[in-house]
Amino acid sequence: MNALVYHGAGKKAWEEKPKPVITKSTDAIVKILKTTICGTDLHIMKGDLPEVKDGRIIGHEGVGIIEETGSAVSNFKKGDHVIISCVTSCGKCENCKRGMYSHCADGGWILGYMIDGCQAEYVRIPHADNSLYPIPAGSDEEALVMLSDILPTGFECGVLNGQVKPGDTIAIVGAGPVGLAALLTSQFYTPAEIIVIDVDDNRLAVAKTFGATQTINSSKENAVEKAMALTNGKGVDVAIEAVGVEATFEICTEIIAAGGHVANIGVHGKSVALHMETLWSKNITITTRLVDTVTTPMLYKTVQAKKIEPKKLITHHFRLDQVIEAYDTFGNAAKEKALKVILTNEG
Amino acid sequence: MNALVYHGAGKKAWEEKPKPVITKSTDAIVKILKTTICGTDLHIMKGDLPEVKDGRIIGHEGVGIIEETGSAVSNFKKGDHVIISCVTSCGKCENCKRGMYSHCADGGWILGYMIDGCQAEYVRIPHADNSLYPIPAGSDEEALVMLSDILPTGFECGVLNGQVKPGDTIAIVGAGPVGLAALLTSQFYTPAEIIVIDVDDNRLAVAKTFGATQTINSSKENAVEKAMALTNGKGVDVAIEAVGVEATFEICTEIIAAGGHVANIGVHGKSVALHMETLWSKNITITTRLVDTVTTPMLYKTVQAKKIEPKKLITHHFRLDQVIEAYDTFGNAAKEKALKVILTNEG
Amino acid sequence: MNALVYHGAGKKAWEEKPKPVITKSTDAIVKILKTTICGTDLHIMKGDLPEVKDGRIIGHEGVGIIEETGSAVSNFKKGDHVIISCVTSCGKCENCKRGMYSHCADGGWILGYMIDGCQAEYVRIPHADNSLYPIPAGSDEEALVMLSDILPTGFECGVLNGQVKPGDTIAIVGAGPVGLAALLTSQFYTPAEIIVIDVDDNRLAVAKTFGATQTINSSKENAVEKAMALTNGKGVDVAIEAVGVEATFEICTEIIAAGGHVANIGVHGKSVALHMETLWSKNITITTRLVDTVTTPMLYKTVQAKKIEPKKLITHHFRLDQVIEAYDTFGNAAKEKALKVILTNEG
Amino acid sequence: MNALVYHGAGKKAWEEKPKPVITKSTDAIVKILKTTICGTDLHIMKGDLPEVKDGRIIGHEGVGIIEETGSAVSNFKKGDHVIISCVTSCGKCENCKRGMYSHCADGGWILGYMIDGCQAEYVRIPHADNSLYPIPAGSDEEALVMLSDILPTGFECGVLNGQVKPGDTIAIVGAGPVGLAALLTSQFYTPAEIIVIDVDDNRLAVAKTFGATQTINSSKENAVEKAMALTNGKGVDVAIEAVGVEATFEICTEIIAAGGHVANIGVHGKSVALHMETLWSKNITITTRLVDTVTTPMLYKTVQAKKIEPKKLITHHFRLDQVIEAYDTFGNAAKEKALKVILTNEG
Repeated sequence: MNALVYHGAGKKAWEEKPKPVITKSTDAIVKILKTTICGTDLHIMKGDLPEVKDGRIIGHEGVGIIEETGSAVSNFKKGDHVIISCVTSCGKCENCKRGMYSHCADGGWILGYMIDGCQAEYVRIPHADNSLYPIPAGSDEEALVMLSDILPTGFECGVLNGQVKPGDTIAIVGAGPVGLAALLTSQFYTPAEIIVIDVDDNRLAVAKTFGATQTINSSKENAVEKAMALTNGKGVDVAIEAVGVEATFEICTEIIAAGGHVANIGVHGKSVALHMETLWSKNITITTRLVDTVTTPMLYKTVQAKKIEPKKLITHHFRLDQVIEAYDTFGNAAKEKALKVILTNEG
Repeated sequence: MNALVYHGAGKKAWEEKPKPVITKSTDAIVKILKTTICGTDLHIMKGDLPEVKDGRIIGHEGVGIIEETGSAVSNFKKGDHVIISCVTSCGKCENCKRGMYSHCADGGWILGYMIDGCQAEYVRIPHADNSLYPIPAGSDEEALVMLSDILPTGFECGVLNGQVKPGDTIAIVGAGPVGLAALLTSQFYTPAEIIVIDVDDNRLAVAKTFGATQTINSSKENAVEKAMALTNGKGVDVAIEAVGVEATFEICTEIIAAGGHVANIGVHGKSVALHMETLWSKNITITTRLVDTVTTPMLYKTVQAKKIEPKKLITHHFRLDQVIEAYDTFGNAAKEKALKVILTNEG
Repeated sequence: MNALVYHGAGKKAWEEKPKPVITKSTDAIVKILKTTICGTDLHIMKGDLPEVKDGRIIGHEGVGIIEETGSAVSNFKKGDHVIISCVTSCGKCENCKRGMYSHCADGGWILGYMIDGCQAEYVRIPHADNSLYPIPAGSDEEALVMLSDILPTGFECGVLNGQVKPGDTIAIVGAGPVGLAALLTSQFYTPAEIIVIDVDDNRLAVAKTFGATQTINSSKENAVEKAMALTNGKGVDVAIEAVGVEATFEICTEIIAAGGHVANIGVHGKSVALHMETLWSKNITITTRLVDTVTTPMLYKTVQAKKIEPKKLITHHFRLDQVIEAYDTFGNAAKEKALKVILTNEG
Repeated sequence: MNALVYHGAGKKAWEEKPKPVITKSTDAIVKILKTTICGTDLHIMKGDLPEVKDGRIIGHEGVGIIEETGSAVSNFKKGDHVIISCVTSCGKCENCKRGMYSHCADGGWILGYMIDGCQAEYVRIPHADNSLYPIPAGSDEEALVMLSDILPTGFECGVLNGQVKPGDTIAIVGAGPVGLAALLTSQFYTPAEIIVIDVDDNRLAVAKTFGATQTINSSKENAVEKAMALTNGKGVDVAIEAVGVEATFEICTEIIAAGGHVANIGVHGKSVALHMETLWSKNITITTRLVDTVTTPMLYKTVQAKKIEPKKLITHHFRLDQVIEAYDTFGNAAKEKALKVILTNEG
C-alpha cells in the first residue's frame, strides 16, 4: 500500500509501505476512505515531537471500512464503515473506566505518533471495539471525519471543561480549526455572547459566520481591554485557549470574570506565567485536557440530528495520493484560507 | 472601647477608639467575646497590603454577643450569641445569589481590612443577617471561632475545590493553620492517604496527630520525588497548596496525577510558572478561591456532631488586652509552636 | 385601585380595593404594567386551593414600575421597571442560601395565594431586593412577563432537573404553556429529538413550530408504544411531566430509558402508582420541584440575546380591566387556542 | 466439581456438575476460595424469580484464584487472586462506557441468575478483564468478599445516589446486610446524624455499633413521627430505602425534607403509592439503581486503608460443602442473628 511517511524533521514522502496486519486479537485493519491533516501533524513534520521515529506513518483521523478483525473484536465485522478515533482506548484500565481514555494504559494518543497512522491506504487500529465508532449507511462520511479529533477536542477540552452555560459570555482565543470547533460546539449550550479573538481577519470573518457575536483582531486592538469593555469590566464567564502560547493564555487569565473557567485546548511548548498574585482570590478554575473522545457518540447524535454542520470546517479537497500537496495548502493556512482538508482514498 | 489599631507598616497599638454605631439598617453591633489572629493580619501589619489605612482596626474572626441591630435585621436580636464570618455578604447581589459571597458587590472580605474589624471590644457587622451565624446556648464558643475563617477556608478552597473523594491519595503542601484546617476537613471525605509536606518538623508532627498518613519535610527531602515514590509514580489525586509561593505551587503541579485537582489556598504575592508544556495534556484542574464561607452552616453541624474538633488548632490563649503579646507569639509561630491563638474579651 | 378579587369557589370580581402600602422596610409597591393568568389561578378560582381566602387578589406574574420602596430596599428605586418573580425570597434563610427560594422561610410562592397578588393596578412585593429583577430601558416588557413564572418553571423543574444534554432524546408530556416553556428552554441544551405528547392536535401543531421533532396524540395513539418505537425500544433519556395526573406520570415512567431522568412539573392532586417492581433496577431519577426562579437572571440573558422568543407563548391580549373576559378565554384554552394571555394596565 | 444447584421453587442440592470451561476468548475460569449468600439468592430459591432455570448454579459473590484465561484476557493470568464482581461488564457497549455496567449489553447481573454462579468450586466469568478485580498478596480475602456486591450496592444505590454530604441528617430504612452496608459507607461522607429504622431490635443494636446515632423500631413506634421529631419537623436530607416494600418506601417519602434525596436500594415486587399530591412541590429526588460496581476500586482503597471494616458484616462461617446448612442459617437471619455468612472452599 501507499502511505505518508515521516523521515525526520522536514522530510516526508508518499511511498510504499507493507499493508498492516492484525497483531493482537483486539485489532482491526481499516481501509481508509477519507482522512485529514491536523495541526499536530505539522508539528511532527517540523521535528517538534522528537519521539516520532523516522519511518512512521502520520495521521490520526479518518473514516474507513473494516477490512479484517482480530478474534476478540465483537462490535465490528468486515465491511462495516467506521469513524476512527484519534485516541485508542482499551476500555479496561483504570483510566478508561473513569472515562479518561487519553491516559489509557495501553493506548491514548498513539496513532500516527507512536504507531502507524491514518494518512495511508490501510491502518491497524488497536482495541478496535473501543476505538472505532460505527457509521450507519447513508451518513455523510466526509462530515464524520471531523469526529475523529477536531470536534471532540473543541468540545471536551474547551466547551465541557469550560462548563459553558445558557446565557454565558464566553471568549475563544484562537480561530484555527480547533477554536472554530469549540465555537460550533459551544452553541450546544446557548451562550448569550461569544467573543472570538485571533490575528487573522479571514478567520475572524469565518468565526462570525459560525456564530461569534463579537470578534477582536488582537494584532490591531488590545484584546484584553476590548474584551473587558464588551463585558462592562466584568470579564467573561468562560475563556477557551485554542492556540498554545503564553500570550494567548494570558489573555484568557486576564479577561476571566470572578468565578469563571479558563479551558486550555492549545498544545504548549513552554511554561506560561500564571498571575497568582491577582488570581488567587478570583475563584477561577483552569483546566487542561488531552481529548478523551468520550463524547464521540454524543457528538455523532448531534450531527445526525443536524444540530451542527461539521462540513463547515472543510475548505479543501484532495485525493489521498495528493497528500504532499495537501500539506502545502494546510501548512499555509492563512494564505490559502484553509481550515480542514479532506483526503479521499480513491483506490 | 479599646481596639488593636494599625498605624502603618510595623506599627500597631492597643488603644481607645469610638465604639462603633449602626450606620445602615442592615448592620449589627457585636460585642466581641473571643477573637483570634490570622496570617493575613501579620501581612497587614508588615505593610504588605498598602490599601489598609492608618487607623484601621484589624481582625476578621470571632464570636460575640449582639449588642444592637439595625431596623432591617430580622435573624438576630440583642443578646444573641453569634459567629462572625470573615466574609460579609449582602445576600442579594448576583455573586451572593450564586453562593460566591467572597465577591459580594457590597461586601466580600472587608472586615479588618477595608472597614474596622474584630480585634476590638465591639465591631460593626454590615449585612448582619447574612454575615453572622447563630450560636445555640451551651456551645463551645472557643471552638466556633475556628468557623469564622480558618475551617471554611481550608474546606472550601482546599477540600471542596480539590474534590477530595473516598479512597483518594491527597497531598497538602503547607502545615500551617490553614493547611491543618484542610487536613482536618479533608477527612470528611475519607481519603485513603494524606501526605503532608512542610519544612517544620513540629508542624509535621502535629499533622500526623491530625490524620496525615505520610509527612515529608521538604527542606530535608526532595518532596516531589518522595511523593511520586509514595504513589508508585502515579502522583496524587488532589494537591492542596496552603503556602502561597512558587516553590510550593510547583510541588503541587509536579506531583499531580493525570486527571487530578490542584486546589490553591495560599495568598500569593507574585506570579508562578505554570508548566503547560507538560500539563496541557494531563487533564488537570487548578482552582483558586477566596473563601466564600457558604459552608459555615455545614461545618457548624459537623462540629456540633463532634465529627471534627476545631479546638485542636488552638495552641495559645490570651486576654484581648494582651493582643500585642499575642501577635508576638503568633508571629513567631515556629519557635512558639503556635497554630491559632484565642483572645478573650473579659470586659 | 381596582383588582381581581377571589370570593370563594366560582366567584370573582374586578372591584375596588385599597392601594397596597409598605408594611416592612424590605417591601416595594409596584404599579403593574402587564400581567397574565396562570393555570394555577384557574384552580384557585374553582376552589381547589381552599387555603386561599375570600377577598384575596389573585395573580403572581407581571412586569411593573416601582412606585415606592421600604427603607431597606437598595437594589431598586421609584421609577425602575421590574420583573415580578412568582416566588418571594428573603435571601437570608437556610433554603434561600442554598438556592431553594421556593421553600424560603419567609416567602416561597405566596403572591396571589397567601398575600395579595398581581392582577391589580398595584401590588406589594415583600423582600423586594430578592424578589424583583431589573428591566433595562428598551426591553420588550411583554416578553419578560414570561420570566415571572412560566419560563423558569419549564426550565428549572423540567429541563434542569431532567438534565437535558446535547444529543439526548427527550419527551415532554403535556403541551400546555408550561410544557411548551419546557420545550423552548430544553433547546438551550440541544437535544437531538424532542417528542411532545398531548391530546390536543392544535397544541401539538404549535409544539412542532416550537421545535418538537415528533408529536404523539395520546388520545389517538398508544403513546408508550409509539415513543418506544421512535426510540428503537430503548426509551427516552429525559421525560418531562407537564400535566399533573397519574396517566401522564405513568407515560413518563414507562418510556424512560435505563439511566434516564423523569422530571415532574405538573401540580398533582392525587397520588400516583410508581412501578417499583420494574423501576427498582432501571437506574432512573425522578424529581419534583416548585419553581425556585433562581434562573431568572440566566433566562433574562437568553431573552436579551434573542436565543429564545418568549412572545411565542402569548396568544391573546386584553386590558387589565377586561380580566374577567381574559379568564373566560384562558379557561377555554383548547377552544380558544389560548396559551398565555397578556393583560395591560392602561391606567 | 460440586456446586449448589437450583431445581425449582424450594428445591436445591449440593451436587456434582461439570467444571466450567472457557467459551469465549474474554472468559476466565476462577476457582472459588470464598463465597457468600445474598438475600436475592433466597428469593431465587423461593421461586420468586421464575426466569431462573432448573439446573442453574446460584451465587454471584466471592473471591477466587484464576484457573484459566481466554486468549483475549490481558489483565489477569493463572494464579492471580481476584474479587468477582456480581455484575458482568463488557466495557465496550454504550452503557458500560457511561459507567452503567448494570445495563451492559452483554452482561449486567447475570451471574448465578442467567448463567451459572459462584456457590461452586469453579465459576466461568465472562468479560473477565472488566468483571474481576485483582487482590494483592497479603490482603484479607474474607473481607473482600463484601466487595462483590453488598458494599457497592449499599454505597452506589444508597449513599452515592442519596448524595450524602458532611453534616447531613440521613435515615436508613432497613438494617439488613445491605442497609448496614449503606450505614458503613455513608460515613465516608461524615453525616452528622444517622437514623436507622427496622423492626428487629438485634439489628438496630448492631446498627448502633456500626455508627447509627439514633434507631427506631418501627414495629413499636411510629417511625415517621419519631423521625420528624428527631429532625425538629424538618425531615431528613437523605432517606435510603433498603427493604423493598411499600411501607418502607412510604416512610422514606414522608420523612424526606424539602430538597432531599430518597435513594432506593430495595428489590420491589409490587408498585408503591407515590404521594405526588404533597411531593410535587417538595423539590425532592428519588433514585433507583441496580448496582453498577463502578466503585469497587474506590471501595477497595478504603478497605486497604482501614477506613472501613467490611468483616463487621460477617457473622457466620461454613465450609462451601455446608452450603445447605448455611442457607438455613441465613434464611433464619433474625433468629440466628445472621448478617453475611462466609463459605470457604477447602478443596
